[in-house]
Amino acid sequence: MEFLKLSEFKNIFDKKIMDFFENLDLENHLKDPLFYYIESGGKRLRPWIIYNFGQIVSVNKKNLLDISIAVEILHSSSLIHDDLPALDNAKLRRGGLANHLKFGEYRAILAGDYGFTLPLQIIANLDNINDRNKLLLMDYFIKTILKLFQGEMEDLIFEKEVRDVSEKEILEMYSKKTGAVFGFCFASPFLLTGEVQLAKKMNTIGTNFGVSFQIFDDLKDLFTTEEEIGKETNKDINKKTLLSFYNYQETQIIADNIYRNVLQELEEINLKELSQILKEVRKTVETR
Amino acid sequence: MEFLKLSEFKNIFDKKIMDFFENLDLENHLKDPLFYYIESGGKRLRPWIIYNFGQIVSVNKKNLLDISIAVEILHSSSLIHDDLPALDNAKLRRGGLANHLKFGEYRAILAGDYGFTLPLQIIANLDNINDRNKLLLMDYFIKTILKLFQGEMEDLIFEKEVRDVSEKEILEMYSKKTGAVFGFCFASPFLLTGEVQLAKKMNTIGTNFGVSFQIFDDLKDLFTTEEEIGKETNKDINKKTLLSFYNYQETQIIADNIYRNVLQELEEINLKELSQILKEVRKTVETR
Repeated sequence: MEFLKLSEFKNIFDKKIMDFFENLDLENHLKDPLFYYIESGGKRLRPWIIYNFGQIVSVNKKNLLDISIAVEILHSSSLIHDDLPALDNAKLRRGGLANHLKFGEYRAILAGDYGFTLPLQIIANLDNINDRNKLLLMDYFIKTILKLFQGEMEDLIFEKEVRDVSEKEILEMYSKKTGAVFGFCFASPFLLTGEVQLAKKMNTIGTNFGVSFQIFDDLKDLFTTEEEIGKETNKDINKKTLLSFYNYQETQIIADNIYRNVLQELEEINLKELSQILKEVRKTVETR
Repeated sequence: MEFLKLSEFKNIFDKKIMDFFENLDLENHLKDPLFYYIESGGKRLRPWIIYNFGQIVSVNKKNLLDISIAVEILHSSSLIHDDLPALDNAKLRRGGLANHLKFGEYRAILAGDYGFTLPLQIIANLDNINDRNKLLLMDYFIKTILKLFQGEMEDLIFEKEVRDVSEKEILEMYSKKTGAVFGFCFASPFLLTGEVQLAKKMNTIGTNFGVSFQIFDDLKDLFTTEEEIGKETNKDINKKTLLSFYNYQETQIIADNIYRNVLQELEEINLKELSQILKEVRKTVETR
């Protein structure tokens, strides 16, 4: 089966998620800030993984798109809370004002809150899935959200508290903050069909993919101007990253090793097509 | 069946929820702020309703207590975010420092986030319930959480935006902000047994109970000193309440009418015992 390139998928997905918000019965004080980061773009990498992986193992498109929308809303909501003054205190995001500067802080907080629970409602509303598999999916998704918050907390603690942080702790933090959601993306097509063992394996592989993705992102941040990525760069100077331990080349090697390992593990479980898909992703995180 | 008085139940429940947190595998940066408002007390009214209603319709105690813990965590988390500087900017809560003043704002925000999702995990982990009824329960709970956020938003908008607000809008806001969670408390024992129609009816009755409870609470706030309730009083001067429309006596009459109607509706569906239970609650909101 042919898979969709990231740019092709983005067109399809953007229309779907716009429709979703247009039909969402929610008053504008919450809807506008929640939609703001979604409208302003992003690569739609997480939805794209769910959709392509699911297509290849043959799951119905409607469910894949609904889960994709749920994950994108979760991701956007985490950016809203991340950007708050008490957390990263971001001024810009995707070329526009940060959410709380555009809508006011209390609306950003409550829109984020809403956006952490709304994705679970989307999963709860899925059709054409049996009760058992839906519960499985919700269970995984809930765990994912909780890990995301734990990762955020560790990231902040490492930045704000004066203490030594080990390389292991940083990788652990990445696996929660960024890895957990990717783990869910990798696993969800298999949860839809109730293939529990495979889903579990995919969750682990996806988490590792997320870790490599996070490291590539750190590297990218180092060599990109504000204009190019539309948010402040190098403002994460107190953030603890792998670059606190290694230089650029060494860090790149670590990320590439994790990434190659992901591809290999997919091939080992006869999902070579999925590994092909991910090779396209690697280009999007090319750092220079 | 004998039902437990509020004070008797509080002893049992406090022990259960302390145990829950002791066994919760979560690092202290999140656990401490999340537990702080739970430890500092509260009447445990919501858990008490779930437990007693469930006992009377004969549902297993373990599930009732687990749902009670879930609801209390949800309630506490909503207080954590409510109290934030960008929202109500509270300095005190239950006689101690507000959460963000005790732990720092970023920890309060993330602990609240965590505490909005953790209750869903508790429900997802229930045993001795079939998949259908568990999904039903989760579906109701998700809707409850989303309504709570909508109510919070309306409450803040009414306070911060300069525009006229109607009595109808205030009652609608109460029904989301306070009513939704009480609606869930009333309904959950019937969701556990899959009595969908009755659960729906109970949800409506419980929501109305919550509205009367909120009005009693507004009245109480008017006549209580800071020392008595351990939070700042009369700081809600810009808040829109029914007292923006009616004087004390008139407001009291409205609340009592809603409350009496709740009791009557319970009696009409042959749940006179539940109406007896609620009569005890009325005393706890006695305003003077």
